[in-house]
Amino acid sequence: MKKLLLLSNSSIPSESYFNWGKPFLKDFLGEERKTVLFVPYAGVTMSFSEYTETVKKVYNEMGHDLVGIHEFDDPQKAIEECEALAVGGGNTFRLFQLLHENELIETINSRIEAGMPYMGWSAGSNTACPFLFTTNDMPIVQPKSFNGLGQIPFQLNVHYTNASIPGHGGETRDMRLTEYLVLQETPLVGLRECSLIEIQGDQYYLKGRGNTMKLFRSNGNHQEIPEGRFDPAEWAE
Amino acid sequence: MKKLLLLSNSSIPSESYFNWGKPFLKDFLGEERKTVLFVPYAGVTMSFSEYTETVKKVYNEMGHDLVGIHEFDDPQKAIEECEALAVGGGNTFRLFQLLHENELIETINSRIEAGMPYMGWSAGSNTACPFLFTTNDMPIVQPKSFNGLGQIPFQLNVHYTNASIPGHGGETRDMRLTEYLVLQETPLVGLRECSLIEIQGDQYYLKGRGNTMKLFRSNGNHQEIPEGRFDPAEWAE
Repeated sequence: MKKLLLLSNSSIPSESYFNWGKPFLKDFLGEERKTVLFVPYAGVTMSFSEYTETVKKVYNEMGHDLVGIHEFDDPQKAIEECEALAVGGGNTFRLFQLLHENELIETINSRIEAGMPYMGWSAGSNTACPFLFTTNDMPIVQPKSFNGLGQIPFQLNVHYTNASIPGHGGETRDMRLTEYLVLQETPLVGLRECSLIEIQGDQYYLKGRGNTMKLFRSNGNHQEIPEGRFDPAEWAE
Repeated sequence: MKKLLLLSNSSIPSESYFNWGKPFLKDFLGEERKTVLFVPYAGVTMSFSEYTETVKKVYNEMGHDLVGIHEFDDPQKAIEECEALAVGGGNTFRLFQLLHENELIETINSRIEAGMPYMGWSAGSNTACPFLFTTNDMPIVQPKSFNGLGQIPFQLNVHYTNASIPGHGGETRDMRLTEYLVLQETPLVGLRECSLIEIQGDQYYLKGRGNTMKLFRSNGNHQEIPEGRFDPAEWAE
């Protein structure tokens, strides 16, 4: 059975790293101690080792172990053999570049189909989408492909907010997402901070600290979806 | 002699469309009435015709005429024969996709080298850079290539500001640009709103409403560059 946990964000300014997400991750991974394989590829301003150490502390506090994929000679084999996979946030373009260069997309997908738990946050949640199209990140490198894992039938915009900087002429988030809707067909959801999507088999749940998520429709008939179970098959316009 | 005018933005919230830039555009184009060829490819939420009509009004007010490239059967030929070229803002990924699909990069470059005046704003200024790498836009489509015209030896971040939304966990602009500096070598400048870069042959000028522009260096030794003439050859770290 497919098991994915897709968090909008790891941190918010006023709380310690992963404070909001830890109860959900702990519950998702279960009681049995697991060794999680961590993909730090989205990290740019800190080394893969530094990033892995930071995340390892979080998982240790939850009673699990964690190793970085960069410590293995053969990253494909590391994925084939891991107990659970966590893909961290950072720059989505860099993450997609390295996932495609190392040819990991298919390997990750076959493990997910076989029941391996997948956890992602921010860029790591974008990875589970059909395409790169709705990331907020800057295209600092050119990935070979914009294709993601396609494990969910819709696009996520993580860290979703339509707040903007007063007096600034740049596009608001909703203006950017509206442009997406003009050119692409795949449905789009704005996932606010401290929210996550959990997938168990063919069941979808919105969880977190009580925020709704925003379903964007190309006809402008957007919809706020409350926490709890939801069904993307019901999203037709 | 190369002649380029690269504006950070067309509009600011409190003023009419192109109000701040018009005096600079007018001065750049000179007294003689010209017919400007307009590239509306970055426009997504309005049609190419609507976008062209809007921009045509601005140029008419300055005593020039303007036609949209989409009105020509052969866009390459339209560029080969135009008196001046204007590339409008919008989504940079969409713009790069259509410029590459229509194979216009080399044609535009050979006209610029031959002295045809080039005007760009926002996405249209990104086009003059070596690469797509430092746009703020969302990757709603995948362009075949991230290569730009390469008419300036540095990257621009247009609409530059480091203001951020209070309480939000997403990256600030400077965090995003710092990631760029880790992975790429091409120098980077943050061009604030109501600022532009003018190129006349091998001379560079920062003009606008008195703002400095910010030169980013990978060693963190960033520098504010005042309005007036500047020389990118002096930017070595």
